[in-house]
Amino acid sequence: MKYSFKNDYAEGAHPRVLEALARTNLFQQNGYGLDDYSLKAQQLIKLQMESENSAVHFVSGGTQANLIAISAFLKPHESVVAADTGHIFTNESGAIEATGHKVHGIYSEDGKLKPEDIQKVIDAHQNIPHQVKQKLVYISNSTEIGTHYLKNELKDLYTFCRDKNLFLFMDGARLGNALMTNNNDLSLKDIANYTDAFYLGGTKNGALIGEAIIINNIALQDEFGYHLKQKGALLAKGRLLGIQFQELFRDGLYYELAAHANQQAMKLKSAFRDAGCEMLSETFTNQIFPILTQEQINALSDNFDFYIWKKLDDGCAAIRILTSWATPDEMVDKFIAEIKNLK
Amino acid sequence: MKYSFKNDYAEGAHPRVLEALARTNLFQQNGYGLDDYSLKAQQLIKLQMESENSAVHFVSGGTQANLIAISAFLKPHESVVAADTGHIFTNESGAIEATGHKVHGIYSEDGKLKPEDIQKVIDAHQNIPHQVKQKLVYISNSTEIGTHYLKNELKDLYTFCRDKNLFLFMDGARLGNALMTNNNDLSLKDIANYTDAFYLGGTKNGALIGEAIIINNIALQDEFGYHLKQKGALLAKGRLLGIQFQELFRDGLYYELAAHANQQAMKLKSAFRDAGCEMLSETFTNQIFPILTQEQINALSDNFDFYIWKKLDDGCAAIRILTSWATPDEMVDKFIAEIKNLK
Amino acid sequence: MKYSFKNDYAEGAHPRVLEALARTNLFQQNGYGLDDYSLKAQQLIKLQMESENSAVHFVSGGTQANLIAISAFLKPHESVVAADTGHIFTNESGAIEATGHKVHGIYSEDGKLKPEDIQKVIDAHQNIPHQVKQKLVYISNSTEIGTHYLKNELKDLYTFCRDKNLFLFMDGARLGNALMTNNNDLSLKDIANYTDAFYLGGTKNGALIGEAIIINNIALQDEFGYHLKQKGALLAKGRLLGIQFQELFRDGLYYELAAHANQQAMKLKSAFRDAGCEMLSETFTNQIFPILTQEQINALSDNFDFYIWKKLDDGCAAIRILTSWATPDEMVDKFIAEIKNLK
Amino acid sequence: MKYSFKNDYAEGAHPRVLEALARTNLFQQNGYGLDDYSLKAQQLIKLQMESENSAVHFVSGGTQANLIAISAFLKPHESVVAADTGHIFTNESGAIEATGHKVHGIYSEDGKLKPEDIQKVIDAHQNIPHQVKQKLVYISNSTEIGTHYLKNELKDLYTFCRDKNLFLFMDGARLGNALMTNNNDLSLKDIANYTDAFYLGGTKNGALIGEAIIINNIALQDEFGYHLKQKGALLAKGRLLGIQFQELFRDGLYYELAAHANQQAMKLKSAFRDAGCEMLSETFTNQIFPILTQEQINALSDNFDFYIWKKLDDGCAAIRILTSWATPDEMVDKFIAEIKNLK
Repeated sequence: MKYSFKNDYAEGAHPRVLEALARTNLFQQNGYGLDDYSLKAQQLIKLQMESENSAVHFVSGGTQANLIAISAFLKPHESVVAADTGHIFTNESGAIEATGHKVHGIYSEDGKLKPEDIQKVIDAHQNIPHQVKQKLVYISNSTEIGTHYLKNELKDLYTFCRDKNLFLFMDGARLGNALMTNNNDLSLKDIANYTDAFYLGGTKNGALIGEAIIINNIALQDEFGYHLKQKGALLAKGRLLGIQFQELFRDGLYYELAAHANQQAMKLKSAFRDAGCEMLSETFTNQIFPILTQEQINALSDNFDFYIWKKLDDGCAAIRILTSWATPDEMVDKFIAEIKNLK
Repeated sequence: MKYSFKNDYAEGAHPRVLEALARTNLFQQNGYGLDDYSLKAQQLIKLQMESENSAVHFVSGGTQANLIAISAFLKPHESVVAADTGHIFTNESGAIEATGHKVHGIYSEDGKLKPEDIQKVIDAHQNIPHQVKQKLVYISNSTEIGTHYLKNELKDLYTFCRDKNLFLFMDGARLGNALMTNNNDLSLKDIANYTDAFYLGGTKNGALIGEAIIINNIALQDEFGYHLKQKGALLAKGRLLGIQFQELFRDGLYYELAAHANQQAMKLKSAFRDAGCEMLSETFTNQIFPILTQEQINALSDNFDFYIWKKLDDGCAAIRILTSWATPDEMVDKFIAEIKNLK
Repeated sequence: MKYSFKNDYAEGAHPRVLEALARTNLFQQNGYGLDDYSLKAQQLIKLQMESENSAVHFVSGGTQANLIAISAFLKPHESVVAADTGHIFTNESGAIEATGHKVHGIYSEDGKLKPEDIQKVIDAHQNIPHQVKQKLVYISNSTEIGTHYLKNELKDLYTFCRDKNLFLFMDGARLGNALMTNNNDLSLKDIANYTDAFYLGGTKNGALIGEAIIINNIALQDEFGYHLKQKGALLAKGRLLGIQFQELFRDGLYYELAAHANQQAMKLKSAFRDAGCEMLSETFTNQIFPILTQEQINALSDNFDFYIWKKLDDGCAAIRILTSWATPDEMVDKFIAEIKNLK
Repeated sequence: MKYSFKNDYAEGAHPRVLEALARTNLFQQNGYGLDDYSLKAQQLIKLQMESENSAVHFVSGGTQANLIAISAFLKPHESVVAADTGHIFTNESGAIEATGHKVHGIYSEDGKLKPEDIQKVIDAHQNIPHQVKQKLVYISNSTEIGTHYLKNELKDLYTFCRDKNLFLFMDGARLGNALMTNNNDLSLKDIANYTDAFYLGGTKNGALIGEAIIINNIALQDEFGYHLKQKGALLAKGRLLGIQFQELFRDGLYYELAAHANQQAMKLKSAFRDAGCEMLSETFTNQIFPILTQEQINALSDNFDFYIWKKLDDGCAAIRILTSWATPDEMVDKFIAEIKNLK
């Protein structure tokens, strides 16, 4: 069978996560997020954010995190501004609209939003009350195309949002990868300071399942549990989520795993560059988009799986390569060997 | 006070409509759309469409017609394709999304949709079930920028929609104006044949209030009354809507009024052309968009009201002029006199 | 044809309302509720409530008023408490639930809610966040079974609601009738003081169409226009609603019409009593529920229409008789003559 | 620390489930439910139901299963009939209403629904289209109060539902317990035959997390994946659910675990009976409701945790005792010893 670089959720959990589950398995715990492990994991995350007043809730997936947070924060007449590559705009089957809210998709070359993009949407919606009111800005970090935000970019966005009375929400399905790039200058503390809320992805970084919704804006924390329950996200065995996040954040495992994934991707990027390949976009996280000829794609496809991301006009195409905490050196080396053989 | 060309709903109803209301005022009638006038008006409209199996329902406004029809026709995971100038995409405060459905807005130069535009949206949503499913195409006739569909355009769209298992819905807030252009080749019968459903606008063409939702696709007719009631559209005194549509469709008044509005607009268009002004777009309905210098705009603004529609790069701007069934010759003549004086 | 006592919306509008429409018909006005008549009508209503800080919005029907107000006021996890005879609980086709909110229906002998009824619902929902949170109390005045609230009852409810952090909302589809009973001690001012919001019914008291939503709680007034638009209630020709309410509230016509309706009902109630009939419930508004034998029902049915309201165990049944502003003395006298002939 | 009989989700997963997770952990698999384990588990369940044409989908929790299935099956104007003890009516924070649908709660002594209960709701909603349309019947097996359905009861309900054009949906959070009572005569095959859809609970019977939604009615199967995705239930690592259900259904573990839970409860029931205690209701599943004096409750509370279920008029109260797959003989014996000491 071919080795897959198609996504970062092809394996189960990091072995330490499974061990923690086994170790605690038979201790009786309270249900619905009131177990000792969830409480401990919340404390660990708040400590690492240096943000004691943030609220932390664990849910089972990213679409769920997005739809619950956004629908809890907004009134019926309020809308969301996102990049048109944003997961909620294009890859969640209308989940946000299903809760009643419009999502404006803005074209973005690099998958990131800038204040001027958002301002244009606001300017085009000044016929009150005939046009929907923009109230929440949704960004992804790292983005769906592998790019990530620098500190000044996030700060500018947050300042803009505060000025315009908008909430800033970050989808952190791959936040670990964003934080562990070589050129990253953002910390968890910065993210606690410069967003109203975000979620911290576990599924794609070592957990079996689980995302941590973190609400920094105190005005948005109230009665959030009702929303979790109403949308079907409050697990009877919340311990499953708590113990995993406890293990990931106990001693830095979360960061190590993301760093590993990034390094594997960067090794592959170098190999592609050395072989003379251009990248569709410049990324430093666990996603790379090398541009190959059809012949090169065919050659690499013999032993490896990956997605064709975008066909280009000259018959070439960008492929998408994803690495993860589980990507072994052995497979990276084997892939590099094949890349070296490309003409 | 200035005379207003800002919209086509500045006056009340055509006098004959008021007379009909007064004449029938004290006859006791059944409530909730089961009055004699509504039943008669339904028959008149079906006769003129030559479509006995269509279903006709009267509601009080266009946003209401759109949101009830669309939410009744779709399942939760289905979305709507519209032009980005479409009323539901930009001017109904998120009404469709509030019923749970995504609206895809497609850029359109002339406000009309073509099959290839819709196909592009479908092509970009093939990652099932992660991406929402397109199920209904929304068009406006005449469009929000004054253009209108020709018969072959509508037929092509409908054929495409049938092939792709999409519903075709037409917003006819200004359908009378579309049907009464000089170059129109569409009849009500064609619209019954080439749409799954549409609404026929009364508010902007002689009624005090009222739109007729017409469902041609029999599969979509079932239990529609529940949706009217649930969304607050089933008027206790449905007679108010029935009597107006009866009067408008009894002897052609509806068409006369739309023709009048169009003629007044065409007279003004000629005057602007004679004065050397270009139009932003070529329209034959009751909306025109002459391009003027700021000086010219100032001159015309002394005695007349209208909207600045779009600022252009050279300091000029397109204004929007709307005429209606109520626009008197006297005001058109007075405006033309001022247009002639433009330099 | 039989004369109908089935409902209070069988005729059109009071002639003065039609005259006002005709008189103002061709004056150009702003659209969407910004016409002179709506502004004037808002002022008149606020003056009569002695509540300058209330906000007044006109919509076309009662279900629409209920669903817009309630969905605008509540967050997704909040529910409504109503009597199980309440219009929203049983006769609006799930309109409130369609906006996402549960309605708790409480059994009530007389159609009115008491604080202890509401407390029981709250007590049964203390498993937070697994159970929905009660946030709004819905009452009707007059109720769906013709009873009405006295001042101390309303004040007690409002005090209770404030204590429990609940909103109090009154459905006033027949508020005129409640205010014009002989034993009423409530004024519009009291209702402004003792509710967070209510609506004042026009459709059933002289208007062609129209209800006035009145928001007394300032915290609930913000951005209400968006909700009107999003739910399809913002009429292009808002003048239609404004002019009617202006006429009804200009010189007391609204109260006169309701008083007339009540008097006609009370005359019929006396006649039934004189004929030896019991009433199902004691009402002083425009609804009465005399209990008749099947023979008596058959006799009255020859010339008059009314609903069988409730079959009783002994073969008798309560019928429902509704009168309105339009019920003429002639018909009341004729009906009384037949009642006198009952055995 | 006290040993808890408060619920059946206090521990993690059955050890064999954890072992299966560990064993398969690093095999690369497709995401979103297309992994080998999910496909295998679907086959196993369909085989055991003898219902090859059923569709099986795995989700993470019971509220999620209920809200997705019900909202996927219903049109906007359709409602649900449930017992007033039903989980969706009282313990899911308005989850069904949040998807737009009314739930009618019917009083039921034993937590079960009978055809005549449902008929009464239908009879009371014949004012079409002013009243919501009943379309789905929701039952729980075992019920929220520990009772369970016999085969003829389920068959009668299903026959009734077919006659009335209603869907029958069973909440099987504790279906294993229902199937393993001593007097049960229902098989999985019967449930496939006599419901339109149901869910099979894993969380409370040996899994870490997970419920299997099973759709028997072919007309309801179409495009169900969209609903899973839109409501946030489609896990990237669907393998987590698949491997668990594979292990539970591979060789009967699911049934063994439920039988164990029931046996432990029955031992405790006998002990309470021997001690002279009455039961609030007669149950044969893993829930029992012995009636105790306050003194007895205090005595048992020293070493054991349980809920006070219902206070009775005479100062006594029914407590709720829940057992699970994890309840050890040692704790049951210890508890029985204390029960024997009750006076």
